[in-house]
Amino acid sequence: MQTTTFEGIITYPITPFDEQGKIDVAALNRLIDRLVSTGSNAIAPLGSTGESAYLNDDEWVQVAEASIKAVAKRLPVIVGVSDITTQGAVSRAKIAESLGADAVMVLPASYWKLSDEEIFEHYAAIAQAISVPIMVYNNPATSGIDMTPELICLMFQSIDNVTMVKESTGDVQRMHKIAALTQGDLPFYNGSNPLALEAFAAGASGWCTAAPNLIGDLPLRLYRAVKDNDLDSARELFYQQLPLLQFILKGGLPTTVKAGLALKGLNVGVPRKPLSPLSASNTERLETLLKAFG
Amino acid sequence: MQTTTFEGIITYPITPFDEQGKIDVAALNRLIDRLVSTGSNAIAPLGSTGESAYLNDDEWVQVAEASIKAVAKRLPVIVGVSDITTQGAVSRAKIAESLGADAVMVLPASYWKLSDEEIFEHYAAIAQAISVPIMVYNNPATSGIDMTPELICLMFQSIDNVTMVKESTGDVQRMHKIAALTQGDLPFYNGSNPLALEAFAAGASGWCTAAPNLIGDLPLRLYRAVKDNDLDSARELFYQQLPLLQFILKGGLPTTVKAGLALKGLNVGVPRKPLSPLSASNTERLETLLKAFG
Amino acid sequence: MQTTTFEGIITYPITPFDEQGKIDVAALNRLIDRLVSTGSNAIAPLGSTGESAYLNDDEWVQVAEASIKAVAKRLPVIVGVSDITTQGAVSRAKIAESLGADAVMVLPASYWKLSDEEIFEHYAAIAQAISVPIMVYNNPATSGIDMTPELICLMFQSIDNVTMVKESTGDVQRMHKIAALTQGDLPFYNGSNPLALEAFAAGASGWCTAAPNLIGDLPLRLYRAVKDNDLDSARELFYQQLPLLQFILKGGLPTTVKAGLALKGLNVGVPRKPLSPLSASNTERLETLLKAFG
Amino acid sequence: MQTTTFEGIITYPITPFDEQGKIDVAALNRLIDRLVSTGSNAIAPLGSTGESAYLNDDEWVQVAEASIKAVAKRLPVIVGVSDITTQGAVSRAKIAESLGADAVMVLPASYWKLSDEEIFEHYAAIAQAISVPIMVYNNPATSGIDMTPELICLMFQSIDNVTMVKESTGDVQRMHKIAALTQGDLPFYNGSNPLALEAFAAGASGWCTAAPNLIGDLPLRLYRAVKDNDLDSARELFYQQLPLLQFILKGGLPTTVKAGLALKGLNVGVPRKPLSPLSASNTERLETLLKAFG
Repeated sequence: MQTTTFEGIITYPITPFDEQGKIDVAALNRLIDRLVSTGSNAIAPLGSTGESAYLNDDEWVQVAEASIKAVAKRLPVIVGVSDITTQGAVSRAKIAESLGADAVMVLPASYWKLSDEEIFEHYAAIAQAISVPIMVYNNPATSGIDMTPELICLMFQSIDNVTMVKESTGDVQRMHKIAALTQGDLPFYNGSNPLALEAFAAGASGWCTAAPNLIGDLPLRLYRAVKDNDLDSARELFYQQLPLLQFILKGGLPTTVKAGLALKGLNVGVPRKPLSPLSASNTERLETLLKAFG
Repeated sequence: MQTTTFEGIITYPITPFDEQGKIDVAALNRLIDRLVSTGSNAIAPLGSTGESAYLNDDEWVQVAEASIKAVAKRLPVIVGVSDITTQGAVSRAKIAESLGADAVMVLPASYWKLSDEEIFEHYAAIAQAISVPIMVYNNPATSGIDMTPELICLMFQSIDNVTMVKESTGDVQRMHKIAALTQGDLPFYNGSNPLALEAFAAGASGWCTAAPNLIGDLPLRLYRAVKDNDLDSARELFYQQLPLLQFILKGGLPTTVKAGLALKGLNVGVPRKPLSPLSASNTERLETLLKAFG
Repeated sequence: MQTTTFEGIITYPITPFDEQGKIDVAALNRLIDRLVSTGSNAIAPLGSTGESAYLNDDEWVQVAEASIKAVAKRLPVIVGVSDITTQGAVSRAKIAESLGADAVMVLPASYWKLSDEEIFEHYAAIAQAISVPIMVYNNPATSGIDMTPELICLMFQSIDNVTMVKESTGDVQRMHKIAALTQGDLPFYNGSNPLALEAFAAGASGWCTAAPNLIGDLPLRLYRAVKDNDLDSARELFYQQLPLLQFILKGGLPTTVKAGLALKGLNVGVPRKPLSPLSASNTERLETLLKAFG
Repeated sequence: MQTTTFEGIITYPITPFDEQGKIDVAALNRLIDRLVSTGSNAIAPLGSTGESAYLNDDEWVQVAEASIKAVAKRLPVIVGVSDITTQGAVSRAKIAESLGADAVMVLPASYWKLSDEEIFEHYAAIAQAISVPIMVYNNPATSGIDMTPELICLMFQSIDNVTMVKESTGDVQRMHKIAALTQGDLPFYNGSNPLALEAFAAGASGWCTAAPNLIGDLPLRLYRAVKDNDLDSARELFYQQLPLLQFILKGGLPTTVKAGLALKGLNVGVPRKPLSPLSASNTERLETLLKAFG
């Protein structure tokens, strides 16, 4: 298995659409370039924020390819992989690997609830098909599937290239549990923006976030303060960005981040229906929030 | 708008797969024939039980077409329509109509949570594209989207061909609310098997269920007892089938119903991965349950 | 063990206070007299509605004694028994029995959550101390303790004078479960007003309610329609009283029922602090609702 | 209003009972003496851990008086005040003040749910009756009443001697909210043991805990590491004590802490029924956990 170390700020680019609703590769290139240069430790295209769920197979490949090319090995790339059938997820994982992804971040998707055995087999099937590391991604609020720390740690111990977990429940007790169950061997990453400070306090290896799209290196500075064992500065940096973090989460990340990028002069289009663009009043509120960051 | 009255038992066929995982149209024909002749008031292909979520576009069209043809106008057909993008859902609704569906049952799907306005616009877009009636389908346990009675009734009052609602939360208070908000004008259908008796008591127009796949006309006899104002018989019929209803719900409907059909001699394949076939021990338990019905 | 059959409408009187906040026995007598004559099958003082939780020991005895005397054996009396310590609950149960209660309705109370074993021992201790029947009362929304059907049925099967259960969760599936676990041997009573119709449909032996304080014999007529196997009439009677049932539940039963009794000319004082009297706007709404019943 | 600063580790003594179930004042004295000398910044008798809810009025006064005397002004004392009626809570608050409490910690209690207005009035009534500071105590898991950050901050801004809040939900987002709503002016204290590290990271002024009964100065050392801006040490100290913190919370604090004190040679009796003593197997597990601390 190949190994790339992921640590610190793992940034999600949104997926820009043009006025016809097609992927806007030029805007994606500009955005990724900015993210690489302003303060990320890794780039994660095709995550929740990247509207991956709303793309068809061709579009998904197009974004994966363009993103990896845009990063151009300046940073590690972890590609979000999810599909409602195991076959589809395996296929996407193989494509991601073949395009040069350093790792894949796998969110289980299903319509019917899955048993722990079904989830395990889903991951095992994907793992068997590729040789890059897999980050297990738990986000029940969007996927409807909740993986317990026990299941996640079992997969880490049983499936070779399951090597990382991204916890997006916002429940720090799960991080404690993961640390306890693996004696600290399984690196966990926080995917809940308003938990950024406390997840780092609890020992998270990284923070997966779309915030750098809008507030540049502030997340990175928080991470560095933690690394410098400077809790007081970390706390101050966290509370400084918290209102923005809460706002973009509450309004739906693709919706709010796309509106914010437009406010910052980068036109990336609107989210795909049934998602609506941010309302005028919320856009105004976002503008006020962004002004605080200069 | 065309109008077809839906009342009583609305039955979901499962979607049979062959050993290669392809749609098994011959088995689908046999199954639908049996469902039509043993006691249903309408047939509803491509619902949750029909694994609609796991089919690609071509398969979806194939099942819709074959089902409508197999029913052959002996009963009304209501086709399940759902897609993660509004554009995809509109497209499926139009195909269903063009194939001869008497109505469509629309479940909202999304990865990101939708606001009430986004849900409303989703239904409005579909309604505008077709002229057959729409049954709003609320099933947050699987879709992750919960529509309040208030929103559902607003859509009924504002969107022309939204004329029915299927409530699958299992919360009878929502049925009371729907009745109150529309003075009884919006027909509601129960989609939670273990609530069948109480939903009819509360005035449900019908029961959408996969149970007739396995227990023939028992659901229909329950419905008729209610129509005959014979609560005592209805209660007896309900408790007779309740253990089976609970079992097929708990194990996941495609999984358990497919296992049950195999036990009854109709080979319909297994559910699509990540769903697993019913375990041996649960299959044994299902066999015991089915024996009680002779 | 003595046995008294409880069936049908089991009515809770509120506990009247005078202007000094003392028990108003004269008002209690008038109220109980009215409840006995207008349509109840049993009287249940010192329940949730009776503000039992807010009374000190002396007041509790005073209300138990006065209520039993006021009913004067015209109907069976079931006295609500609850205390935060087992010793206190045993003591109240013995007093109720000595005063002539036909049964006691026991709600577990605790500050710290109780294990199933602790709940079982609590009931066993009470049962051992008295010889009248015990109705297990499950109302987690107020008591904070949720007893599963499994635990309740175990106590029914293991503790001699546990002979009835009042389910107030509003979850009809629990009634199905109780019926299944005891092959219908354990009579269950519904304590959730907005579930009155469906609980009877599911086979409830009775409905424990404060509604007769305000709407006379309407609950009894609903019960009789069910007994007459006349579902259509039962449904009509239910929907007629449902808005009132929802209102008195939502506003807190002591608060709303006391306000309603005042509107009907019976001054019973206000609930005890921290509970506040019904607001002016809600009182107005209640008046409108009551007018519908003439 | 008097003011005493509360910061750091606020320790709950359990309430010892003798073999007859009476308050064991001698054991209470020994325990408090130990807590004062081994590492607390304040002592908080009659909290949840102190089984305050299960004591009658006389016992409550006895414990309050004995505790204040035992602390003997070596540390500030904050007395837990709670009663199901407002009148009872006011009475206890006045007694606590008259006995020399430096502050009172007030948990709202009710059987029926309270509106925000009712909760506000409850606190206002208590505040008006005393002149020592009030710590608002939010612990819905035991009290059944959940106070939002908005309500808590409103009371802080509107009621003179409401000056602190203890949050025991374990939800760090509420702490963020309290900080935001009051620009950091309202000191918040963490009451959820497994959140100790993250609450301090988020800026908590203190940690209310029963852990010092069993693990001496470890909580205090965690607090000091935070004060020294040494996150790495704080994290290490936290994970060291976390298994014990989780264990004593899960088993119920009075139950587990009393069992642990017995294991450490201080006989403090068993919790009051309906609470049961810790089971043999759990006592064994606790013994193993305690051995890790030498």
